[in-house]
Amino acid sequence: MNNNYLEAFEWRYATKKMNGQDIPEEKLSDILEAIRLSPSSLGFTPYTVLVIRDQEIREKLLPHCYNQSQITSSAAVIVFAAWKNFNEEQVDKYMMEIAETRNVPLVSLEGFAGNIKGKINNSKQEELEIWAAKQTYIALGFGLAAAALSRVDSTPMEGFNPAGVDATLGLEEKGLTAACILTLGYRDEAADFLATAKKVRRKKEELFVHI
Amino acid sequence: MNNNYLEAFEWRYATKKMNGQDIPEEKLSDILEAIRLSPSSLGFTPYTVLVIRDQEIREKLLPHCYNQSQITSSAAVIVFAAWKNFNEEQVDKYMMEIAETRNVPLVSLEGFAGNIKGKINNSKQEELEIWAAKQTYIALGFGLAAAALSRVDSTPMEGFNPAGVDATLGLEEKGLTAACILTLGYRDEAADFLATAKKVRRKKEELFVHI
Repeated sequence: MNNNYLEAFEWRYATKKMNGQDIPEEKLSDILEAIRLSPSSLGFTPYTVLVIRDQEIREKLLPHCYNQSQITSSAAVIVFAAWKNFNEEQVDKYMMEIAETRNVPLVSLEGFAGNIKGKINNSKQEELEIWAAKQTYIALGFGLAAAALSRVDSTPMEGFNPAGVDATLGLEEKGLTAACILTLGYRDEAADFLATAKKVRRKKEELFVHI
Repeated sequence: MNNNYLEAFEWRYATKKMNGQDIPEEKLSDILEAIRLSPSSLGFTPYTVLVIRDQEIREKLLPHCYNQSQITSSAAVIVFAAWKNFNEEQVDKYMMEIAETRNVPLVSLEGFAGNIKGKINNSKQEELEIWAAKQTYIALGFGLAAAALSRVDSTPMEGFNPAGVDATLGLEEKGLTAACILTLGYRDEAADFLATAKKVRRKKEELFVHI
């Protein structure tokens, strides 16, 4: 297999200006499927993913995202919303999903269920929230990689006010909080100085230590 | 472009048993390059990546990683070590890299430099550590995706004792701490029940909320 994924990852950049063009349904659905297939700690997936195409909602999100224009000029805004509430029922539901998918008895999963329940019951609330937020970054990574492989432009975003985004999307009452955002669309090459700027990355001799 | 990345992401799974086989140099170097190309907040890349192939060191890491056998039966153990120390010199160095790579005057980067310095100077130490750790999860995502696209097996790991890993690798004195681990190698299909188990993921109707 000849890998041209590096070409795709070279091509991608944090697009600052998008042109408002829509992306084909199949491409969006491929990128979402890549996000769904991304791994998470214990497979627990402690997050929900909002796929926002509604223009009115995006206008409302804009001021909470420091007016970054991609919020409204992208084709879709993906909000990775980490769980804030954790309980044993979530673990039981996950075990049901495993049992059904793999056609194994629930009793064979008791040890695994106990591990996750132990983590939930013995961790501080703040630790669980940080743990959940970290998992969204793996999904963000898969979404960015898939977008590049589909030649769809994207922007990973941390620069937003979570409280404002949460309030706009009604996340608080669902026990969720926005952890990171991914916008998907097409670059406006003429307006975006970064579109033609050389990518800056730490030199491999500095980033990597070989042992 | 026809995307078979979903096939690769379906194929990958958190490999529990590896067979000790080495991976070709080009594949390892492609995966590392994908990691290097992964984005990070402000492009600041507040982490260092250890690529460990030395078997003796890996034996020493094993007990700190709950004796997960992939630590020694993989071809390489990648430790994403987040920075714990943050200072203005790091920002100045980054600005030099941008100026050199893009051939732009340093003075044109003063605003951007100020933003990052502001973040460093105005955030609590703990917030900066969490922020740095989160960035390693994007790189982990890119590493996992690239491995799958190269048909190299992998395991993302959070299950380790950071203090033990840090001590074994001398990370503490370098102002680093292990945030997450990625092992790369080849599955031992006969020994790994997960190799043939159906992948469990939340149903898309539950994971995604379309607005």
